Amino acid sequence: MIKVIKVGGGIIEKEENLNLFLDSFSKIKGPKILVHGGGRLATKMAAQLGYKSKMIEGRRVTDEKMLDVVTMVYGGLTNKKIVASLQAKGTNALGLSGADGNTVLAHKRPVKKIDYGWVGDIDTINSELLISLIKNNTVPVIAPLSHDGKGNILNTNADTMASEIAKELAQKEETQLILGFELNGVLKDINDKSSAIKKITPDLFKTLKSEGIISEGMIPKLSNAFDAVNAGVSSVIICDALRIGENEGTIISK
Amino acid sequence: MIKVIKVGGGIIEKEENLNLFLDSFSKIKGPKILVHGGGRLATKMAAQLGYKSKMIEGRRVTDEKMLDVVTMVYGGLTNKKIVASLQAKGTNALGLSGADGNTVLAHKRPVKKIDYGWVGDIDTINSELLISLIKNNTVPVIAPLSHDGKGNILNTNADTMASEIAKELAQKEETQLILGFELNGVLKDINDKSSAIKKITPDLFKTLKSEGIISEGMIPKLSNAFDAVNAGVSSVIICDALRIGENEGTIISK
Repeated sequence: MIKVIKVGGGIIEKEENLNLFLDSFSKIKGPKILVHGGGRLATKMAAQLGYKSKMIEGRRVTDEKMLDVVTMVYGGLTNKKIVASLQAKGTNALGLSGADGNTVLAHKRPVKKIDYGWVGDIDTINSELLISLIKNNTVPVIAPLSHDGKGNILNTNADTMASEIAKELAQKEETQLILGFELNGVLKDINDKSSAIKKITPDLFKTLKSEGIISEGMIPKLSNAFDAVNAGVSSVIICDALRIGENEGTIISK
Repeated sequence: MIKVIKVGGGIIEKEENLNLFLDSFSKIKGPKILVHGGGRLATKMAAQLGYKSKMIEGRRVTDEKMLDVVTMVYGGLTNKKIVASLQAKGTNALGLSGADGNTVLAHKRPVKKIDYGWVGDIDTINSELLISLIKNNTVPVIAPLSHDGKGNILNTNADTMASEIAKELAQKEETQLILGFELNGVLKDINDKSSAIKKITPDLFKTLKSEGIISEGMIPKLSNAFDAVNAGVSSVIICDALRIGENEGTIISK
């Protein structure tokens, strides 16, 4: 079974947390792929370079300068630091942006009400390349960048990258999607770290939503998880990124 | 025959020149690898970030901040722009730093008279990975960064990277090394662009040196070229980067 593991910006940002996460990640047996976010590192770098971040309705717009920053930070600094660190931990990592080997082909998001700039909506995943790397004992480490086939890099959401990659791999091999973040899983009580729900089925999801137990931010995450399961991914686990190999957290399945 | 093609910072820096070079590069038939320099892009970025460049005896010292800059700029911005552009030109490029797939393992240069900081001297090249990518119709695009196997990226000279990669590949497959730069080849008269010497043998090299015809900067380039030829590389071509497929320039061979 292939494990597609996503780790978010909150973990990546702090060197100590990143190192703990990579320790756990490198100990996971069997074929695996890492998809990383970038978080606030790009925002910090943009500020240091004197670029103003454009926000519309609370969401970032990727203009040309910001595209250069995310390409540098996500595709260069973060990706290569992770790869070098995994190599030191005995894992033969290989970093990829969506442009490398045409791994993730996308198109620039069409302008409707809002122009998000150089942001990509994914069209195709090169699962053949990923599977061939995995079969050669190589661990792909994927930055949240796609390309449009016309020479442009596109800023792309890491959750979506991980989910689309898992869905595509699931057409060929049994695939699990693991979403690592700062909490122990989907919590029944946001103030109680030990209240992680073991398993969420579509029926339970409906109930939890109607009872208002699941918080607003978690609803799109869970909806995406069910989308992945419905598209053939065998299960989705939402768990603490620092305890990623421990089979803890919340399992989402049919 | 595998062609290992090196292109320097002078071409990379100007978008128009880079595009012309990539047009020529993408038209070259057969298995090929691109090794790119970074040039002054990292210096510019460092200045924009407010980092002071440390120079000792005219050579750059890679301190921690500068290492982050070269990792971002060479491994991220430059490498991914080249890869995305080649994809648009129909070449299935895949970008690699030396850490990716353990492509280039090095050690931090020992401190003797001068401490150059995070600079790598190459130990081993993973030619198996490069050959397996090439056999899958993928074109490796290599940034001038190695790693030390202990989790650190190291800044590494692109000429040396290209030459070491060519030497290692030459142990397994017929390999040619092509060094693209701003001139038409090794010029007999530096003021006459059409004075490129067709072929330089070890004997002619001695003569040209003793007669003072070859300029100082060209001597180490030619010495490296002869090293590569002596280590099994079938020939080295020094030529205009913008006319890289045209069999022009100077051939260095036994």
